[in-house]
Amino acid sequence: MSLFDTHRALLDGALQASATRGYWSPFPEVASPKVYGETAQADGQAAVRALLGRDFPLAQPGEVGRVATEDSPYGAQIGVRYPECAPEALVAAAQAAEPQWQALGARGRTGVLLEALTRIHKRSHEIAHAVMLTTGQGPMMAFQAGGPHAQDRALEAIAYAWKAMADVPGEALWNKPQGKNPPLVMQKHFEVVGRGVALVIGCATFPTWNTYPGLFAALATGNPVIVKPHPNAVLPAAISVNILREVLAEQGLDANLVTLALSEDPAHTQQLARHPAVASIDFTGSNEFGRWLADNARQARLYAEMAGVNTVIVESTDQYAAMLRNLAFTLSLYSGQMCTTTQNILVPKDGIATDEGHKSFEQVGQDLAAAVDKLLSDPRVVGAVLGAISAPQTVQRTQDAATKGRVLLASRAVDNPDYPQARMHTPTIVALTQGDWATYARECFGPVSFLVATEGAQGALQTADATLREHGALTLGVYSTDRAFIESSVQLSRRARVALSINLTQGVYVNQSSAFSDYHATGGNRAANASYTTLAFVADRFVVVQRREHVAAPPAA
Amino acid sequence: MSLFDTHRALLDGALQASATRGYWSPFPEVASPKVYGETAQADGQAAVRALLGRDFPLAQPGEVGRVATEDSPYGAQIGVRYPECAPEALVAAAQAAEPQWQALGARGRTGVLLEALTRIHKRSHEIAHAVMLTTGQGPMMAFQAGGPHAQDRALEAIAYAWKAMADVPGEALWNKPQGKNPPLVMQKHFEVVGRGVALVIGCATFPTWNTYPGLFAALATGNPVIVKPHPNAVLPAAISVNILREVLAEQGLDANLVTLALSEDPAHTQQLARHPAVASIDFTGSNEFGRWLADNARQARLYAEMAGVNTVIVESTDQYAAMLRNLAFTLSLYSGQMCTTTQNILVPKDGIATDEGHKSFEQVGQDLAAAVDKLLSDPRVVGAVLGAISAPQTVQRTQDAATKGRVLLASRAVDNPDYPQARMHTPTIVALTQGDWATYARECFGPVSFLVATEGAQGALQTADATLREHGALTLGVYSTDRAFIESSVQLSRRARVALSINLTQGVYVNQSSAFSDYHATGGNRAANASYTTLAFVADRFVVVQRREHVAAPPAA
Repeated sequence: MSLFDTHRALLDGALQASATRGYWSPFPEVASPKVYGETAQADGQAAVRALLGRDFPLAQPGEVGRVATEDSPYGAQIGVRYPECAPEALVAAAQAAEPQWQALGARGRTGVLLEALTRIHKRSHEIAHAVMLTTGQGPMMAFQAGGPHAQDRALEAIAYAWKAMADVPGEALWNKPQGKNPPLVMQKHFEVVGRGVALVIGCATFPTWNTYPGLFAALATGNPVIVKPHPNAVLPAAISVNILREVLAEQGLDANLVTLALSEDPAHTQQLARHPAVASIDFTGSNEFGRWLADNARQARLYAEMAGVNTVIVESTDQYAAMLRNLAFTLSLYSGQMCTTTQNILVPKDGIATDEGHKSFEQVGQDLAAAVDKLLSDPRVVGAVLGAISAPQTVQRTQDAATKGRVLLASRAVDNPDYPQARMHTPTIVALTQGDWATYARECFGPVSFLVATEGAQGALQTADATLREHGALTLGVYSTDRAFIESSVQLSRRARVALSINLTQGVYVNQSSAFSDYHATGGNRAANASYTTLAFVADRFVVVQRREHVAAPPAA
Repeated sequence: MSLFDTHRALLDGALQASATRGYWSPFPEVASPKVYGETAQADGQAAVRALLGRDFPLAQPGEVGRVATEDSPYGAQIGVRYPECAPEALVAAAQAAEPQWQALGARGRTGVLLEALTRIHKRSHEIAHAVMLTTGQGPMMAFQAGGPHAQDRALEAIAYAWKAMADVPGEALWNKPQGKNPPLVMQKHFEVVGRGVALVIGCATFPTWNTYPGLFAALATGNPVIVKPHPNAVLPAAISVNILREVLAEQGLDANLVTLALSEDPAHTQQLARHPAVASIDFTGSNEFGRWLADNARQARLYAEMAGVNTVIVESTDQYAAMLRNLAFTLSLYSGQMCTTTQNILVPKDGIATDEGHKSFEQVGQDLAAAVDKLLSDPRVVGAVLGAISAPQTVQRTQDAATKGRVLLASRAVDNPDYPQARMHTPTIVALTQGDWATYARECFGPVSFLVATEGAQGALQTADATLREHGALTLGVYSTDRAFIESSVQLSRRARVALSINLTQGVYVNQSSAFSDYHATGGNRAANASYTTLAFVADRFVVVQRREHVAAPPAA
């Protein structure tokens, strides 16, 4: 049985789910021993430990040396030494691997990728531990977001790529009547051909979740891929790349179709990004480098997810306590280091109506601070939810932010008994007014939120509109009991082209998106120019090359 | 009945045809009175005559004056005065019209556009005559390419836009099990929202065929459109824009959703192209302005069709005479002014094997020249096939080309009894060698072809490979009786990402593409970055804006 046939049900499930967009996942998010095996977690952690402080087992062309670039937010010693390869050698190897991969066709490629994804899934605990150690995510989040949820997004990308390629028939008989003369008949072939070498640049916080979509979309559509992980979160990407290479080699294909690029020299990435053979770049990271890529890597089509100013508008609520709990979790999860975490919470300066009576702006601030405090008063919750701070600069940024307004909730350092060196800090909430545009109307990455007192509910809409127009966002939330106000928020979300979550009070958070159902980013504002996953994310990664020639007319019926 | 339901069969036909890619067209290409009506041609010509020398009936916001910019290649007096409108006013009017158009949804928009297209079809003779007078195309070609074939491409764009939008469900119930706890249930809505104002920049030679795809694709996906025709081919676009505006107004929609932009000041177009609200640009024209747009209109997604170096390789043939007739027609049609016309014909310097025995390079050249001469010896063929030269510079370019090598066929001026001032010139064929790279490896637009003597058949492949790599192409042809050589050409076409026509000897020409079957341009080489029509041409013209909120769990089954 071909790999495609082996995994056909998985593909069909993903196609069905992404078309109907109800809840679906083939990869269980609960890290239960019953699902993953009794020893799976211990085995995964042991597998990671066996890699630490050693040469990572990856042999690629053009190796010029080994580099160890990772510094764990938990203070763990990583010290994995990865190959540094000459950009020209990686590009040449990718190009050499391309024709064979192209010739495999959509079915062949999809089968290989689904097999690799299935193996990645089986190593979820290993990858999760690598994600945790390198990003600072809490263990459960590292498992879910770095394992099954990332795998969902990979499968989604494969499914969309399949759908786009399936839109192109392999061949056709073109039979054009010519009145009384014999018809003109041509045999036509249509081939899906990738655009060329794809570069996938990962981020420090979600090294699999944000890397897999571009990686699998580019591969599925016929392109070789060079994965350039963030220097601080290499291991999860390196393991994933190795699994892909292993499956390729087993299938008798050139493993250099997928390679890992890493260097301590930033010029290395720039050289790759500007290489004439690089036809597409998937990038997750800062606006600064995203803009650099847009300005300088002009030969490539850029799929970029950068930073925006995520906003929640609080106009009123009939579930005050549940709203506060929901917001508190959003602000605390991974210490606000998600690209989807709410930064600005806009509240009318005269307060809001709630099921617990009118609440002043001040009271909302105190209650939200208390809700965060309460959530993080349980050490087990702290370890599971908060995680560690990925970059040292983020701690500094958090402290600086506290000087910009009135501190409603101070950030505090937290101990982690398992990792005494862990860089852990709780969120801060700073009160501002609508006039403090210079502070809140730019991204302040990390455990920082601004509670902004606006000129009424209309002032909140205006403030959101202005910040979204200027900076974009990945998420927008609204709390209101007034359907007319909600409708105004819907219009705002449409105008700003940002996803809207309305009155979240249960176990769904504005910063979470569910693969196969929620589109992650719209791609229509400054925070991102692409979405996980739409046809637009995959359809321009390949072209159709046709050939046609005359054939004799088929016999008349 | 809604407009969508009225035209549903037309849409379904297009969807079916573009999926199977056999021959199909709902718009008859034969300008027969039986099909179009006994007086249709005369009526269409009279309708155009009634517009000449007058103010074109188009009232748009921000009009600052009237401009007449058209100079007919046939020497006819056009003198139609179009409104010149301030770019800011056009953009503001487009933005004002957008929300209503967006709210109409995919069905509503598609219905309106199919109604407009049907009306455009009914006015095929009028538009054809406008195309003929402004571009110089022969009457029959102006009818076919400017009328039904352009309408086919418009319908194709609408169908692909529909398909891409239909991939997004309007809503979903997301129901996530929570073990023993009640499920999490959310109602989600997904809206297709255009990216913003679209600018569609037309060319001088195919003012409808190359304008309709971007125009209809952008509109269907929810974007307002500003049509900027080439100053010398405004009338066909203006009539089309007026029909769209008429249907919009009838439906109670803002007609300024589609406007015409024209000015004698080139800065006008540049200002529009760089406007921050302009989110996409469709462009057909020179590499020079295409590059300017890519460099300067960076806020917009560019869909560009420019110029390449179209090539035919002649290795051998078993239908020598039919091959020559086919090539002669290709070179003569519209005096080689199609973006798909063959420029370089590569022939081994030692000649080729044919069904009429071995033919030397010299002989092939003489025979091809004779075939063109013979085709154009009939004055009726000249009028129908050749047409007039769109731009005076093209005549000069043709003369210059003749000095670059040995002239196998000289261009000659031709009289047109109906239009004594017509600028008509037959094609020239110039012999070069493989070493004359500087001459043949760039576009020489117009009735100029180079017959290049290559170092054997392999030299022909290498020459084609090098020129296609450097300049791209819209078309590639090969003549060979050797399947291995054809396979090498197939590999070349895949590598160069260009469509290949093999052994064309009947009534299909390398420079013609058939809507719903042939993809026009691959979008994968330097000649064009987009294709008529793939999902990639439509899928990134809109984003999906979602909203979600909790709902009570549905009752258990």
